[in-house]
Amino acid sequence: MRHLKLTVAYDGTEYCGWQIQNNGVSIQQKLEEGWTRFTSEKIRITASGRTDAGVHALAQVCSLKTENQLPPERILRALNTYTPYDIAVTRVQEAPNGFHAIRDAVEKTYCYHLQYGRIQDPLRLRTCWFLPGDLHVTAMAEAAVLLTGKQDFASFQSAGSDVNSTVRTIFRLHVESQVDNGFPTVQITVSANGFLYNMVRNIVGCLVEVGKERQQPEWVRWLIEQKNRSLGGQTAPANGLFLDHVIYDE
Amino acid sequence: MRHLKLTVAYDGTEYCGWQIQNNGVSIQQKLEEGWTRFTSEKIRITASGRTDAGVHALAQVCSLKTENQLPPERILRALNTYTPYDIAVTRVQEAPNGFHAIRDAVEKTYCYHLQYGRIQDPLRLRTCWFLPGDLHVTAMAEAAVLLTGKQDFASFQSAGSDVNSTVRTIFRLHVESQVDNGFPTVQITVSANGFLYNMVRNIVGCLVEVGKERQQPEWVRWLIEQKNRSLGGQTAPANGLFLDHVIYDE
Repeated sequence: MRHLKLTVAYDGTEYCGWQIQNNGVSIQQKLEEGWTRFTSEKIRITASGRTDAGVHALAQVCSLKTENQLPPERILRALNTYTPYDIAVTRVQEAPNGFHAIRDAVEKTYCYHLQYGRIQDPLRLRTCWFLPGDLHVTAMAEAAVLLTGKQDFASFQSAGSDVNSTVRTIFRLHVESQVDNGFPTVQITVSANGFLYNMVRNIVGCLVEVGKERQQPEWVRWLIEQKNRSLGGQTAPANGLFLDHVIYDE
Repeated sequence: MRHLKLTVAYDGTEYCGWQIQNNGVSIQQKLEEGWTRFTSEKIRITASGRTDAGVHALAQVCSLKTENQLPPERILRALNTYTPYDIAVTRVQEAPNGFHAIRDAVEKTYCYHLQYGRIQDPLRLRTCWFLPGDLHVTAMAEAAVLLTGKQDFASFQSAGSDVNSTVRTIFRLHVESQVDNGFPTVQITVSANGFLYNMVRNIVGCLVEVGKERQQPEWVRWLIEQKNRSLGGQTAPANGLFLDHVIYDE
């Protein structure tokens, strides 16, 4: 059996998320159907993480097993021919025997885009969370530092997941501000060895509590200790979230 | 009568263009309707240029005459409440008596976004023209230089307009390349004292002929001399075009 590694970019706006579901069209479905259309082979494509409805990806990584023997270049071209424009396979590589996109990932990086101020940027409706009013970005950056390291992130896990441990290690969590087309924006970039359900969007929601000065930066330290999701900020909307890239031990 | 100057940003994807038309929803219509909804006053809003269907704006400038006496700040907030999210009024200013957004403009700048290579960026479908294959960006920049200055741009005017003179002055025309999220892109920025119908999109189409090495850079000099639109490249699609900003003598 041949193992392949796909790198995929997508605009998640029109999809019910990565995973195949009964109530909507998913990225996984479009990729698997595309594969079947040019190979006549039914396969399963596994992604490093199941992005939710509306979440985007710059370099999602997927694994698959196939009997097909076409060179990677040909597969890349064929798959892009048979998938919609808002999903793009950017790379196809031979993978080591048994390669698994979830199990073998050692680091994942997400990026979240916020825009604030008086007026919402009409050109970034699909890709930014708009927060009316001011945002104290320096305080958000201070709070971000307190979230790094190996910690129990139970307070940042939304209901609906069932994992053995809620301990994860955040390697880096950066908060940067800039002005795009006159609109003030904030980029939150977070790298970890793994993420709990909605963890990035819940971290962003908590950092916004601090940015809005409803909480002090030190509040997130207290929040971690409580191990109680109901005490945190809101879950940030999906449209501002991008799976940036995934690192594997190779 | 009070004169106002509005600065407006919009995503043109869902609109039939700036100007009110029978066969679609226009930006002008949405702004005029928004104005009427909070003032009960019917007015005409004039833009510096009538952008076509699908064309975007970062800082379109509009003029209007009104009996309303609300402060600019209040008007800004009210107008944004009564217009859709893909249209944003970013500034409202008092304007000199008789201010007219078309007549008084001294310089307009457009920006065109191209993306090339093997794979189309799924996150820029609305805002980029995708050209499969390679693009010789240096040759495009050489050709761009030949288009600057005061010249007769008849070869770059699409049918359907009726102007006295086809002479315009291009102050600057820059071609820059960069890589965004791994996708190679080109930005073409052009400033002039005025533009003929479809002039920017026809210039971009001609620069792409050069970039595709179907023509030498010197070809554009010959093209200008012919004063014949049918000899040029294709008209670049609307979705890559942005009205960047407009300068007034004040």
